[in-house]
Amino acid sequence: MAEIHEECGVFGVYHVENAAMLEYYGLHSLQHRGQESSGIAVSDGETINSYKGKGLTVDVFQKEKLSAMKGNTAIGHVRYSTAGGQEAENIQPIVSKGHNGCLAVSHNGQIDNDVELRLELENHGAIFQGTGDSEVILHQIQYERGTLLERITQAARKLDGAFSFLVMDEDRIYAVRDRYGIRPLSYAPCRQGYVISSETCAFEVMGIYESYDLKPGEIVEFSKDIVKHYQYTNDISHHMCAMEYIYFARPDSVVEGKNVHTFRKESGAVLARKDQDLHADIVVGVPDSSLSAAIGYAEESGLPFETGLFKNRYVGRTFIQPTQAMRDQSVRMKLSPVESVVSGKSVVMIDDSIVRGTTSRRIVQLLKSAGAKEVHVRIASPVFAYPCFYGVDTSTRAELIGARLNVEEICDYIKADSLRYLEVEDMREVAGQIGLCLACFDGKYVTNLYTHGKELED
Amino acid sequence: MAEIHEECGVFGVYHVENAAMLEYYGLHSLQHRGQESSGIAVSDGETINSYKGKGLTVDVFQKEKLSAMKGNTAIGHVRYSTAGGQEAENIQPIVSKGHNGCLAVSHNGQIDNDVELRLELENHGAIFQGTGDSEVILHQIQYERGTLLERITQAARKLDGAFSFLVMDEDRIYAVRDRYGIRPLSYAPCRQGYVISSETCAFEVMGIYESYDLKPGEIVEFSKDIVKHYQYTNDISHHMCAMEYIYFARPDSVVEGKNVHTFRKESGAVLARKDQDLHADIVVGVPDSSLSAAIGYAEESGLPFETGLFKNRYVGRTFIQPTQAMRDQSVRMKLSPVESVVSGKSVVMIDDSIVRGTTSRRIVQLLKSAGAKEVHVRIASPVFAYPCFYGVDTSTRAELIGARLNVEEICDYIKADSLRYLEVEDMREVAGQIGLCLACFDGKYVTNLYTHGKELED
Amino acid sequence: MAEIHEECGVFGVYHVENAAMLEYYGLHSLQHRGQESSGIAVSDGETINSYKGKGLTVDVFQKEKLSAMKGNTAIGHVRYSTAGGQEAENIQPIVSKGHNGCLAVSHNGQIDNDVELRLELENHGAIFQGTGDSEVILHQIQYERGTLLERITQAARKLDGAFSFLVMDEDRIYAVRDRYGIRPLSYAPCRQGYVISSETCAFEVMGIYESYDLKPGEIVEFSKDIVKHYQYTNDISHHMCAMEYIYFARPDSVVEGKNVHTFRKESGAVLARKDQDLHADIVVGVPDSSLSAAIGYAEESGLPFETGLFKNRYVGRTFIQPTQAMRDQSVRMKLSPVESVVSGKSVVMIDDSIVRGTTSRRIVQLLKSAGAKEVHVRIASPVFAYPCFYGVDTSTRAELIGARLNVEEICDYIKADSLRYLEVEDMREVAGQIGLCLACFDGKYVTNLYTHGKELED
Amino acid sequence: MAEIHEECGVFGVYHVENAAMLEYYGLHSLQHRGQESSGIAVSDGETINSYKGKGLTVDVFQKEKLSAMKGNTAIGHVRYSTAGGQEAENIQPIVSKGHNGCLAVSHNGQIDNDVELRLELENHGAIFQGTGDSEVILHQIQYERGTLLERITQAARKLDGAFSFLVMDEDRIYAVRDRYGIRPLSYAPCRQGYVISSETCAFEVMGIYESYDLKPGEIVEFSKDIVKHYQYTNDISHHMCAMEYIYFARPDSVVEGKNVHTFRKESGAVLARKDQDLHADIVVGVPDSSLSAAIGYAEESGLPFETGLFKNRYVGRTFIQPTQAMRDQSVRMKLSPVESVVSGKSVVMIDDSIVRGTTSRRIVQLLKSAGAKEVHVRIASPVFAYPCFYGVDTSTRAELIGARLNVEEICDYIKADSLRYLEVEDMREVAGQIGLCLACFDGKYVTNLYTHGKELED
Repeated sequence: MAEIHEECGVFGVYHVENAAMLEYYGLHSLQHRGQESSGIAVSDGETINSYKGKGLTVDVFQKEKLSAMKGNTAIGHVRYSTAGGQEAENIQPIVSKGHNGCLAVSHNGQIDNDVELRLELENHGAIFQGTGDSEVILHQIQYERGTLLERITQAARKLDGAFSFLVMDEDRIYAVRDRYGIRPLSYAPCRQGYVISSETCAFEVMGIYESYDLKPGEIVEFSKDIVKHYQYTNDISHHMCAMEYIYFARPDSVVEGKNVHTFRKESGAVLARKDQDLHADIVVGVPDSSLSAAIGYAEESGLPFETGLFKNRYVGRTFIQPTQAMRDQSVRMKLSPVESVVSGKSVVMIDDSIVRGTTSRRIVQLLKSAGAKEVHVRIASPVFAYPCFYGVDTSTRAELIGARLNVEEICDYIKADSLRYLEVEDMREVAGQIGLCLACFDGKYVTNLYTHGKELED
Repeated sequence: MAEIHEECGVFGVYHVENAAMLEYYGLHSLQHRGQESSGIAVSDGETINSYKGKGLTVDVFQKEKLSAMKGNTAIGHVRYSTAGGQEAENIQPIVSKGHNGCLAVSHNGQIDNDVELRLELENHGAIFQGTGDSEVILHQIQYERGTLLERITQAARKLDGAFSFLVMDEDRIYAVRDRYGIRPLSYAPCRQGYVISSETCAFEVMGIYESYDLKPGEIVEFSKDIVKHYQYTNDISHHMCAMEYIYFARPDSVVEGKNVHTFRKESGAVLARKDQDLHADIVVGVPDSSLSAAIGYAEESGLPFETGLFKNRYVGRTFIQPTQAMRDQSVRMKLSPVESVVSGKSVVMIDDSIVRGTTSRRIVQLLKSAGAKEVHVRIASPVFAYPCFYGVDTSTRAELIGARLNVEEICDYIKADSLRYLEVEDMREVAGQIGLCLACFDGKYVTNLYTHGKELED
Repeated sequence: MAEIHEECGVFGVYHVENAAMLEYYGLHSLQHRGQESSGIAVSDGETINSYKGKGLTVDVFQKEKLSAMKGNTAIGHVRYSTAGGQEAENIQPIVSKGHNGCLAVSHNGQIDNDVELRLELENHGAIFQGTGDSEVILHQIQYERGTLLERITQAARKLDGAFSFLVMDEDRIYAVRDRYGIRPLSYAPCRQGYVISSETCAFEVMGIYESYDLKPGEIVEFSKDIVKHYQYTNDISHHMCAMEYIYFARPDSVVEGKNVHTFRKESGAVLARKDQDLHADIVVGVPDSSLSAAIGYAEESGLPFETGLFKNRYVGRTFIQPTQAMRDQSVRMKLSPVESVVSGKSVVMIDDSIVRGTTSRRIVQLLKSAGAKEVHVRIASPVFAYPCFYGVDTSTRAELIGARLNVEEICDYIKADSLRYLEVEDMREVAGQIGLCLACFDGKYVTNLYTHGKELED
Repeated sequence: MAEIHEECGVFGVYHVENAAMLEYYGLHSLQHRGQESSGIAVSDGETINSYKGKGLTVDVFQKEKLSAMKGNTAIGHVRYSTAGGQEAENIQPIVSKGHNGCLAVSHNGQIDNDVELRLELENHGAIFQGTGDSEVILHQIQYERGTLLERITQAARKLDGAFSFLVMDEDRIYAVRDRYGIRPLSYAPCRQGYVISSETCAFEVMGIYESYDLKPGEIVEFSKDIVKHYQYTNDISHHMCAMEYIYFARPDSVVEGKNVHTFRKESGAVLARKDQDLHADIVVGVPDSSLSAAIGYAEESGLPFETGLFKNRYVGRTFIQPTQAMRDQSVRMKLSPVESVVSGKSVVMIDDSIVRGTTSRRIVQLLKSAGAKEVHVRIASPVFAYPCFYGVDTSTRAELIGARLNVEEICDYIKADSLRYLEVEDMREVAGQIGLCLACFDGKYVTNLYTHGKELED
């Protein structure tokens, strides 16, 4: 129910005819990673043209606009922006138009030493027009000396944090991933060229089922129709963001070799195995992101999986918020309980996470108002107790209910009959060989947080 | 996948403060019944004001607009219009502003003797500004003599076809249902008054779980805060549109006492029982309308229910259709196969119906391209072989693959490994005591089709 | 400064290829007669299609829309609507879609016995969806019996008031003018067919300089490529609305044989001849409608005509009204005094009329704040003291400053150094042989006002 | 008729409460200097917020948007952009957000050594996101060292060309004008602070009639509520753009102490004095910019000034261009001849300039088609034969009819009965003590044209 937000998705097209159109399809498939703005930069081999706007990819780009963007290489971006940074200047890709050529950058993640780098760059005369990280990446690359590869290499070594970014000049694309491997980034052969994406679901949409992940600390160069791999650092680790599996990624994506739907089903199954003694009638998932876990729980427990909550798809561009008196109705407009299904039943309600607790509380109430006898809440992730500094827009620590209350207290607050989370160890078990960043659950951040660390004290 | 279209939903509010706002919530809950236009007419006891526009309810109505619509009685409408009738004149409710008062009409269904009635009314001097049925209803009521109740009674006796309509004057609402009971129409107490709706899901959204269906041939009068029932004819039958259960209605609605999700699950279970000999690995429903049936099939068969197809929710206002070369991509933009789930598997694919066959064919192909070993298509309804004349926008008979080919031939056409439909008798079994209109499956129309009968010869 | 509003303009195209496009040009030339909505109905010989919308003609109609409107006969309408009647239902042309054919009506003027006719028609079963006069015309025509010409003839005889309307069926256009000749209506040969217009400026825009006025009480039939004239009554008079000359009509139009710019210049000259003793420095007209009169005054008096007031053309769709504190600025945003021109000068300020007096008062103040030594206001029309019931949207009588105060008092109110109006006799002198309706000046209404007469008592 | 375009207008507000609202009024008054985009940057003393968009000021800024822009210091910009540079990145003001504070720049004019400066700045690591001059100004200021005043001083010395720009930080505004005095820039006391504007008409709109021009080579600092003047160079000259008087500026503006309307009237009078032998009947100005000159001509010659051409004000956002067959109509849609006025007359047609000749040719033809016996074209400026490099968007030299043909040939081309221009010396006479840049007439450019000089060889 929209309490956690991924900040971005990137998509690149190297050497495929009519790149802008393919870019459009790619961004559309990554739309769940950001709905506030969309942008595409296309190179025709001589110069780079870009177009960006607020809104969904399908609304920003009209046919005439796309047709006018000639070229066979492109990068693009979809963005969710936090309250403070909705200025047009922050919409990506960011393009620099220099005398010796153009550069475009699309970025997903969060640079943790951005303030430090910005200061240094400004001391060297840099001018920043927006407030986003990506402008820092672009300036840092420009500031370095040597070939473009050398400049990107130097810049990547200085950047600390979670980042997966694409750099395009007139005839090359460089894909770069941070040394911790926090944000996903994959590429795949496509016709005579390549496509690069934050998530593999964009490849599947194009009928491409074979793809490769960038390694942590890697730069991949797409140039002269071949692919070259460079390791800008060997000081690497594997800390894929657990939230990608739990919440952000599309169920049809494969992240680090593991399908997201499958991950969620297995999480649900683990929850079920801990509920041997629970006597319930049906399993209900909170749509959409918790359905896979609910299916997994149902399968493992043998309880029927039921559509006990219905989500209204017709959201529109504006939606009138009801007055205080009608407040309860506001939730119901998006989510309504199916009385025939839940009435008189003891319900296992599966959700992916609890942020502030208010939404969970309302859903429990919805189910009870529709006649559910009991509501046992099961969360397919551990207690969310620490803010993310790696590209996820969460509440401040003070707002996280998991940071203030223990499980029993949370259960009381949301008025559930029982409440259980996955343990951090359960997450690792489901992940198997895949290394995860679990900082939002255990507070073990993989980077020095620089100036951002202050927020932890809130 | 949007090949069949319901033509409308109606919603009424009698004697509830701030009726326009409640109407807005009601129409939003019926949005699945029509997305092309929305309209609301409100009475403040002295006059009727209306506002209508093209698009979703949440886009047509802004806060200022709704706040300006004072009054505690309202009727509204959401509409899907067929190609030929998108004129603004056809947007409902239709309001007449007479010297002795106003009348507003919202209608869901199709009048079969509309041409005959129109001719007669024109001979009496009537002027029609639009092409829709509802204007015929309004004129017929106006043409009759006596009290409003008498005029509605006379008019209802002359109208033949499927209709559920609301008539509002300055201080009353009349709800009317055809003698065959084809289209649903229910009402429920709400605070100090009543709400009336095409589907009960709109009640549940308001936290109301107790509601009543109008009987075939009934007029219900909401007036002076009481409800009166009149039977305008005793020549009635029970022929609830089977498609409401199969496709149109929201799974959280209760139609004629039976929950829609449950109906679909049971349909899926019947399909499963006929597949005792089938050796498959997983069950996949085509989202969204076939998920309930797929869950039912999975439960009955013991096979795992899997999310093998993913539907992209970000549709936007315009969507660029790809060129012929990229045509396959167009389907993928809306629906993509989850390779990790289906690869190497023998898949039971559940869909609600087959209209032209082209969409089914593409989905089978999608699953196979993602590595499905076998695809067994199961349709949770009988062979769709006859056009509907009761308010459903279907293809002409010539376009219905079920009218031209037998099941084996259809299976060949969609390239499935096997294909099975429900039988008409299965539908009746699931429906139990509920009488169904199954004309689109068996060609047994419940009305004389008048001039519309010609289309059957196409 | 937008205190008086014409209510409409009509334009017809008979038998000219691509009629919709020509209609578009015609309506654009009549845009000064109404900016709130625009509509076009086109006949292709078999049926009538229409499209209408709120806003300027150039904004309502896009190229695709016009191209899709095939046919060589069309009627259209631009509308200014009063506050109470902005509903979409009132946008013209109004089209009826009957079994025996379609009819479209475009109307400019005001029917004074509309309430009486409406009642009678309703008693015969008519349903009115809007509140405008034009629907009454359409119904009255439909109600009569006989050929279309006979029905229009009967209807025209019953309608009382000011009207110039067009009726189109699949292959004919009828142009009809009231018996008093209050509203203008002209036609002209155009290529192989004809064009019909509220004002001749639309012809001139098409390069057509020869045109004919309909006579009072006349019906002109455009059919089978010929023009036939019928006099539906011989009880006629000549009362062309004086406001057409003074304010509404474009200066390049010819009304009843007299060019509007010339009429205004002569009015200005008459004013000058009465000011023999006035010692002033410059003549300044309030843009745009008073410029012609100012030029006439300057020429006659020998004083220099100066651009002492500048009108900002960039109005935009919305304009933020300033707070009380900035209120004075609001007028200045639209109209600003040219200090270099007026400073230290004794100014003759020419305006076309005074309605409430507030605008005149503000303009006098503007000129003085820019240094004008004296401001002598001269109004190129008589004292406006009576409301119009013939299609002009004026204030109620209570708001007309001319109904409450005498000239001296008005002069005091607007803080002018002197004030002079034209006399009613002066208007007649300028008009020469042309009969005028001067009811808003002398209260001599040419029709029985029916129920509308009550407003005179306000 | 829109063949020459000014590129910008700037407006600043220093220390006036609710600066954004005053800025809005200021920009609206400068809208004639640019209609493609509008932007406002406001400082609240701590930080700078900006909002910009495509379109008219009144369309870009809604009430909520303006109300949200708190602060008492602001700069703004209206922009006409040439074809190649409509990107959102070029909309001004341009704002840099640095760690030590923000800077905003609004600029009107053209930097001639922009390519040279850009190259140098890029070599020092600067990144340019747009293609406009203003980004060069901002970077150059940022690149210099010292206090902000020192940095602006150094930068202004390096910039060559025509420029009037404003620089705002959190609590100061600097206004800067080029050493040649080509573009206008004035300021005036306003309540407790100051307003700064490209044209004085914006002051008059605020009721302010006393203002001061910046001197060539001057920087004016608005800070701590006082005004300080600095001369960044003493190597100055006076070359006010003649086109400001002839075409761009509003008639109610005062440029270098001379009112624009008066300048134009005097130009018209000079033309009249040369036509002693011409026997004509009436004087007609091409609206709007040539009306003042026509009034001057009429006054001097004693011929009547007539409204022989009417301009349609209802332009709308989009306008359908007619097909080749209807091409003539396209001109008429905007401008139509008043047949009653011109028929049978020998007309003196006054226009401000001839660029390509096609528009003049069409207007002559319009007048003749409406019956004008003779059309004598008089141009209130010298032959336009050289492109402008100081902020005016003209055709390339090849397109300027004055660069290819002599006056007699131009007269033939536009099919006038006679044609006369003002001489360069006449312009100087009218200007009196005011030094003018007449480069577009005599080719005497006041700057080294750097790389732009190449265009002269086209």
